[in-house]
Amino acid sequence: MSLHEDHARLRVRVPGGADAVYAHVVEDGEAELIEGEQEYSSEGVSWYTVQIPLLAVVTPYRFAIVRGRRYIWLNQAGAHDHEVTDDGDFRLITGPNPPSWVPGTAVYQIFPDRFARDDDSLDPLTEHPDWAVPRHWDDEPSGSGPAAAVEYYGGTLDGVRRHLDHLADLGAEVVYLTPFFPARSTHRYDAAGFDEVDPLLGGDAALKALTREAHARGMRVMGDLTTNHTGDRHEWFETARADADSEEAGYYYFTDHPDGYVSWLGVRSLPKLDHSSPALRERMYGADDSVLLDRLGGSGHSAEDERLDGWRIDVANMTGRLGAQDVNHEVSGMIATRMREIAPQAWLLAEHFYDAGPDTRHDGWHGVMNYAGFTRPVWAWLNTGPEGVRYAATHTSAPLPTSGAAAAVRAMRTTNAGLPWRVRTHSVNALSTHDSARFATVVADPVLHAVGVAAQATLPGVPFVFAGDEIGLEGRDGENARRTMPWHRTGDWDQELLDAHRRLLRLHRILPALGAGGLRWLDSGEHHMTFLRSLGEQVVLVHLANGPHDERTAEFQDLDADGWETVESAGRVRARFDGKVGVGAEGPGHLVAVGTRRVG
Amino acid sequence: MSLHEDHARLRVRVPGGADAVYAHVVEDGEAELIEGEQEYSSEGVSWYTVQIPLLAVVTPYRFAIVRGRRYIWLNQAGAHDHEVTDDGDFRLITGPNPPSWVPGTAVYQIFPDRFARDDDSLDPLTEHPDWAVPRHWDDEPSGSGPAAAVEYYGGTLDGVRRHLDHLADLGAEVVYLTPFFPARSTHRYDAAGFDEVDPLLGGDAALKALTREAHARGMRVMGDLTTNHTGDRHEWFETARADADSEEAGYYYFTDHPDGYVSWLGVRSLPKLDHSSPALRERMYGADDSVLLDRLGGSGHSAEDERLDGWRIDVANMTGRLGAQDVNHEVSGMIATRMREIAPQAWLLAEHFYDAGPDTRHDGWHGVMNYAGFTRPVWAWLNTGPEGVRYAATHTSAPLPTSGAAAAVRAMRTTNAGLPWRVRTHSVNALSTHDSARFATVVADPVLHAVGVAAQATLPGVPFVFAGDEIGLEGRDGENARRTMPWHRTGDWDQELLDAHRRLLRLHRILPALGAGGLRWLDSGEHHMTFLRSLGEQVVLVHLANGPHDERTAEFQDLDADGWETVESAGRVRARFDGKVGVGAEGPGHLVAVGTRRVG
Repeated sequence: MSLHEDHARLRVRVPGGADAVYAHVVEDGEAELIEGEQEYSSEGVSWYTVQIPLLAVVTPYRFAIVRGRRYIWLNQAGAHDHEVTDDGDFRLITGPNPPSWVPGTAVYQIFPDRFARDDDSLDPLTEHPDWAVPRHWDDEPSGSGPAAAVEYYGGTLDGVRRHLDHLADLGAEVVYLTPFFPARSTHRYDAAGFDEVDPLLGGDAALKALTREAHARGMRVMGDLTTNHTGDRHEWFETARADADSEEAGYYYFTDHPDGYVSWLGVRSLPKLDHSSPALRERMYGADDSVLLDRLGGSGHSAEDERLDGWRIDVANMTGRLGAQDVNHEVSGMIATRMREIAPQAWLLAEHFYDAGPDTRHDGWHGVMNYAGFTRPVWAWLNTGPEGVRYAATHTSAPLPTSGAAAAVRAMRTTNAGLPWRVRTHSVNALSTHDSARFATVVADPVLHAVGVAAQATLPGVPFVFAGDEIGLEGRDGENARRTMPWHRTGDWDQELLDAHRRLLRLHRILPALGAGGLRWLDSGEHHMTFLRSLGEQVVLVHLANGPHDERTAEFQDLDADGWETVESAGRVRARFDGKVGVGAEGPGHLVAVGTRRVG
Repeated sequence: MSLHEDHARLRVRVPGGADAVYAHVVEDGEAELIEGEQEYSSEGVSWYTVQIPLLAVVTPYRFAIVRGRRYIWLNQAGAHDHEVTDDGDFRLITGPNPPSWVPGTAVYQIFPDRFARDDDSLDPLTEHPDWAVPRHWDDEPSGSGPAAAVEYYGGTLDGVRRHLDHLADLGAEVVYLTPFFPARSTHRYDAAGFDEVDPLLGGDAALKALTREAHARGMRVMGDLTTNHTGDRHEWFETARADADSEEAGYYYFTDHPDGYVSWLGVRSLPKLDHSSPALRERMYGADDSVLLDRLGGSGHSAEDERLDGWRIDVANMTGRLGAQDVNHEVSGMIATRMREIAPQAWLLAEHFYDAGPDTRHDGWHGVMNYAGFTRPVWAWLNTGPEGVRYAATHTSAPLPTSGAAAAVRAMRTTNAGLPWRVRTHSVNALSTHDSARFATVVADPVLHAVGVAAQATLPGVPFVFAGDEIGLEGRDGENARRTMPWHRTGDWDQELLDAHRRLLRLHRILPALGAGGLRWLDSGEHHMTFLRSLGEQVVLVHLANGPHDERTAEFQDLDADGWETVESAGRVRARFDGKVGVGAEGPGHLVAVGTRRVG
């Protein structure tokens, strides 16, 4: 007897054909091999279909491709000549899909204090809170150190609104604002309240005006919520400390009330929230007028065109976790469910510096900041900059890893194998963020920088640009990287890099295959990586190189496409499409070509 | 602020040295790299130590070995030149250790109906239950098919007791009996009750007598419990069907009482148990006089020398799982906890045909039947037998996989990387079981068969012999393999194979390195695999070959040991220990040599 009524039909492409193809599935803990049927075969390539039962929430599967008595196991990490664990299985999530607009969009990250003021004055602002250290707009942030959090440049949400033209010109469609709630720092990850937008940024009115104007331009706006902790000046925490019997006292982990409490990485100004508290859940993301839902339209407080289009969840990886307690999946599941009820088109994006796979294999976060599966491998391949650059999140003095392109591809295949595909296409590809060094400093080479932008725009995931990256701003660590936009010094802007961003974000926008399309790795070596993205009739070939390599053709004989046209090329790469397809390079560069799938 | 007071000091051996070594740990969801110190360096090999915090229950970690800007990641699957997920991390379990006697022992599996009668008569028994089809002792079981479950040969527990000399001669120290509770089949996985031993097998008195005598000989006795289901004639199920309001009705999944219910793989005679029922849990493994605990001494019903020494849990992989419900880890955790309270020296072994890793990364099953990490890779490497042999558990017509030795090693490294080390050493290495074809049929070659026995006795895990394997019994599938022991035809016994079992099980018993010792893969190719086991001063070199290959020496220069002595050798392999160590083969065979660790 099966409890499962629904099935999925899988199709798998098998170059060289097979004697039989099976899908390996696990139902109620028991594995099974389900035999498939050959659907089609031509020019040495066969397609097989297998029907598998859909399980509750997530259906993991992999293929066994059998020739004689030899098995090839095909999972999301690739093909293996030996048995593998279930960890790298493909995974279908059967819950409702996250918003379909996400994979085709591009995100522009703004750190509000550093983007633009109400006007373009440069001198330190005379009006500022007592904790803040006012800076001249052109000052370089001090970087890691005690002053970093309180340097005050005076950017505002009206400043953002005044510069939406820049985003439109760039081709960014989502304005993602790091926290806008009041705090006692300029990063604002130490929220002092969740009710109103920080008056220093212009308050609720400024956010509403920004959102209205962005929406009118077809853009979206996303906020940043600290679910893991609040600031120690947060009204909840102050109530909690004042009264051990208060509801709010149950929101935190007091070890010795009122002075002993658990905080983020031991930073006492960031007391950690206890998500085993039903009252906290309700207040933060459960109730219609909760912090998270209210600004998505949950309570009707905001007009439709003033509502946010999603949230980035700060420190999502730690949220709900402390020692043996782990309610992380309950929290992300509840947020996803409630968000879908209130705002089915809103995006739920989780911060995740490390292996995010295990936290995404259920109906929870739509996507993650894919540091492990994009940022780190691309950095490892392209980092040629000075010593001492810090990949912020490692909390270590360890040097930046360096690898060849082939090892970077192995890293991407291995780490991304843990993410269900729909999570990967709803995750972001960042070259830098407000928490890392700037990519311009990491690569220290404009051609390689553009190769990174090409990777960002063509690999599965949503391109994510930290404001200023597009014009070549530098920064040696996460805090030093939070530099101001030099609106008054456009002569310092790297116009070629900006143009590369424009071209590549445009390709991402207009080529559906680069959004939700499938990925096929074709080739890689010490200095190059080549892959296909495809959706329907559209096939996109991407070739990235960081140095010279011989022309490669052998792997390109079964691309199943023709009518190739090179739509983007920079640096010293080349391609030919004369019967065979070949790509090579005399030096760093990137190339994107579009073909049309041949009808079989 | 850290909640963790305890730390562990890790040591890692780095051939070629490093600029720095880090341990990667994840605490409360946040990853961290902790730098280690070089402890010792000699002849190009360095040892590093790293102190890491111990987390609640399980502490996963891996090493980053850094040279310049190149990283090598070292996890339980091996060394990688690219970033990896957390799936293959080493894992320390901080709960109390499972019994220390397990890694050094050897298991002998007995299917009671087929091992020995009270006397050695051969004719079909005239007294038998009405469902049974009596067989002559020399009849071959029919194999997969409707008759298989009811063929009745008449073996008993007194029969087992009468033949304990055979086990002692073989060197097996644990008598593992497949189910002994009453049922309506001869496999007895369809229990009709859990109160008494099946009178057909001699009842409780026979089990007690067997256990007493085994204990007197220094042997242990293990039972087999079906936690996933009962038979449909079980008293619980009959009560449940008779009364929808009974407590027992809550033990099962009724979809339409009394005739609609969930059963194991849809087999209606095996109704599935619902472990979300607290009453079921209590009755099966929670209460002192529960099914599981009673026979371990929980209720004081049995004398100390009549208590079982452990349980094998049938279909452990499905227990507590149905659709979206999954309480599997709750069940294994509760069983482990209660077992430790009642019988801290009892072994808890779980059936697991597939990827067992995710079910072992907590304080639950001590070990698993490691089909995925031992049986399947060894079969794949050595199977040279006829077509049509069935690896029973795949529920498929797919052929047996075949691979070279190097791919088999990759399979072992990959699949075992999911198991915490202490789980691996408390798991069993089976060449055959009552659920698979017989290894003699799979390999169809006596020298290769002995290579398999050597693998079983020298790789991490407990050697596990299905009664009759040691004399070369054959069988093409799990049911056909349940053949009777030909006590009266010792002339048909494969005496060489029996002797190989004796020698290799003895080595496993007398060499501590083969029990709890570490594993280091040295080399592998199409036809050979070579590895070290070591514990304290003892280093054991194992070389296995299924065909000729050139001598290999290059990888053996840093074995850190000398005084080599070959303690076991068969077939056409050779080794030399003259300064360098070299191994080669002109054909199939195996070799075991023991050395002494050099003091640095």
